[in-house]
Amino acid sequence: MSRLAGCPLCDESGGRLVFQAPKWRLIHAQEAGFPGFYRIVWQDHAREFSHLPRADRMACMDAVTAVEGAMLRHLQPIKVNVAALGNVVPHLHWHVIARFDWDSHFPGPVWAQPQREAEAARVADVARRLPALEQELLSVLPRVA
Amino acid sequence: MSRLAGCPLCDESGGRLVFQAPKWRLIHAQEAGFPGFYRIVWQDHAREFSHLPRADRMACMDAVTAVEGAMLRHLQPIKVNVAALGNVVPHLHWHVIARFDWDSHFPGPVWAQPQREAEAARVADVARRLPALEQELLSVLPRVA
Repeated sequence: MSRLAGCPLCDESGGRLVFQAPKWRLIHAQEAGFPGFYRIVWQDHAREFSHLPRADRMACMDAVTAVEGAMLRHLQPIKVNVAALGNVVPHLHWHVIARFDWDSHFPGPVWAQPQREAEAARVADVARRLPALEQELLSVLPRVA
Repeated sequence: MSRLAGCPLCDESGGRLVFQAPKWRLIHAQEAGFPGFYRIVWQDHAREFSHLPRADRMACMDAVTAVEGAMLRHLQPIKVNVAALGNVVPHLHWHVIARFDWDSHFPGPVWAQPQREAEAARVADVARRLPALEQELLSVLPRVA
C-alpha cells in the first residue's frame, strides 16, 4: 500500500466508512444538508486519476457507477454529481452527490454559494432512505471490488 | 444518434470544437480566466454517467484520461479537476480543468467564490501552450476514439 506521510486520506477513512474494497473504500461524507453525499476514496495515495493504470481506473469508475446507480434507485435525485477535485487533499477521491431541486445549492454545484435553506424535513426524508441504500450497496459493491 | 429536442448540447457543440469522435467530442470551454478548461461531451443525449453501457463508460473515461494526461505534460498544473455535474444542462459532459495555485479560485473549485484576481500574464502563458497541447491531443485521441 502506497501511503504519503501527513495525507489525511492516507491516515484516516475521511468519513463514515460504508465498505472497504482492497483498492478503494466507500465513505459517507457527512456533509450537512447533503445526506446523499458519498465518496469513493482510492486506498493508495494517487494524486491524479490518470496516474492509475487503466484497469484501476476502470475499477474505480465501476465503484462510482455502482454508487450512482443505487442512489438513483433509492433516493430519486434530480441529478447525480460526480467529481474528482482534490485541490485541498490531493489524494484521489470521487465525490458522488445526490442532488435535489430543493437542496440548498441546486442548480449550482455544492461548492458554490447557497441559493436557499433546504427544508429540514426533506433532508431528513433522504437521510431515512440511507440504510436501504447502503444495504443494497453492501451486496452490489463486492461484485465490483 | 439519440438527441433531445431543446438540449443545448444536442443542438450545439458547447464550445470551441477540438476533436470529434463517434461517441464523444472534445471542446475547449472558453471560460474566462481558465484557459486549461476542456469538456468531453457525450454525443448521444445521456443524463447520467451510469446510464451508459460499461464499454461506453470506459471509452468516455479513456478520453477524459487522455485529456488530463496531456494537460499535465503541457500545462504543468498543480492539480487537474474532473467533474460531471449537469445540473443546468443534464446531458453528460465531463469538465477537465487544469488548476494553478495562482488561479482566481484555487484551492476552491472553479464554481466557488473567487479568492483573488489571476494575473493576466500567467493566464496568457497557459493560453500560449494550448496549440501544442491540442496538437498532441489530435494524435492521442484518435487512439481512444
